[in-house]
Amino acid sequence: MRVLGIDPGLTRCGVGVVDGSVGRPLTLVDVGVIRTSSTLPIAQRLVTIERGLDAWIEEHRPDAVAVERVFARSDSSTIMGTAQASGIALVVAARRGLPIAMHTPSEVKAAVSGNGRADKAQVGAMVVRILRLSELPKPADAADALALAITHVWRGGAQSRIDAAVAATRRPVRTR
Amino acid sequence: MRVLGIDPGLTRCGVGVVDGSVGRPLTLVDVGVIRTSSTLPIAQRLVTIERGLDAWIEEHRPDAVAVERVFARSDSSTIMGTAQASGIALVVAARRGLPIAMHTPSEVKAAVSGNGRADKAQVGAMVVRILRLSELPKPADAADALALAITHVWRGGAQSRIDAAVAATRRPVRTR
Repeated sequence: MRVLGIDPGLTRCGVGVVDGSVGRPLTLVDVGVIRTSSTLPIAQRLVTIERGLDAWIEEHRPDAVAVERVFARSDSSTIMGTAQASGIALVVAARRGLPIAMHTPSEVKAAVSGNGRADKAQVGAMVVRILRLSELPKPADAADALALAITHVWRGGAQSRIDAAVAATRRPVRTR
Repeated sequence: MRVLGIDPGLTRCGVGVVDGSVGRPLTLVDVGVIRTSSTLPIAQRLVTIERGLDAWIEEHRPDAVAVERVFARSDSSTIMGTAQASGIALVVAARRGLPIAMHTPSEVKAAVSGNGRADKAQVGAMVVRILRLSELPKPADAADALALAITHVWRGGAQSRIDAAVAATRRPVRTR
């Protein structure tokens, strides 16, 4: 399965695409970050994120999307923008009828490193090993998006298949 | 000018359309609420809000959109959903190139009732008087959306014209 991981953010929205399945080696397909300028109005920044995510999905055709679950207790200065960006990520994926999973930061840490309290460096080192990279993609948001995608393949695959089966019985979601 | 006020929320997203200009009587055009079931996945609920807002804009063709500004310090149990819904509202309006203003709850209270600490009942009573209604639209989210639209006409009109002029000098926003 191919998974697009999204680490939502208004200034830097991390995106990472991974191919693989449980018990087999995972492959990096693409990784990057969608940036928006803090000088633009928030609405315009969100539209830029929407277009960017649409373009990533168009190009890589993922089977599922994994989005970091955002909590109100996170850093409050940026949490509203992060929540808004996560809403855009969810809508972009749901419009296309893609199965969506949300994973918390500690779920991602636990899945990738075996320790829900692992630090950034430990998670990053595991991303490099799992995907057999020569170095960790930067910025951190890009690496986090890959960790989300890896988590989804390893942890969320079964749930995605259930969701996809359920979604197939509903009326189709309009893709625009 | 015609203003669409949006009081963002995941369960009830208030929408109210008002016609008018500074110094002249305002008129209610339409008011309502977009509801989504809490039994649905968040992504699906956000898509429902997106479609609902698109339909309101299609039907009423507002000149500007006023969205309540959401703060991290609000009630934390629903704040993430409210922030996500507000992100959708901003994107739906920005995609169409509509001027957008955000007003805080106390700006709305001050504009409508003359008191930034007015309670719901006082604001509601003023909405009824200003729009010459026989009774206050329910639920509260619908009335709040009207208060936002009124605030925008009285307070944001000049800013909207500036934004529109600035927007006209940028490359056009794709409307989908």
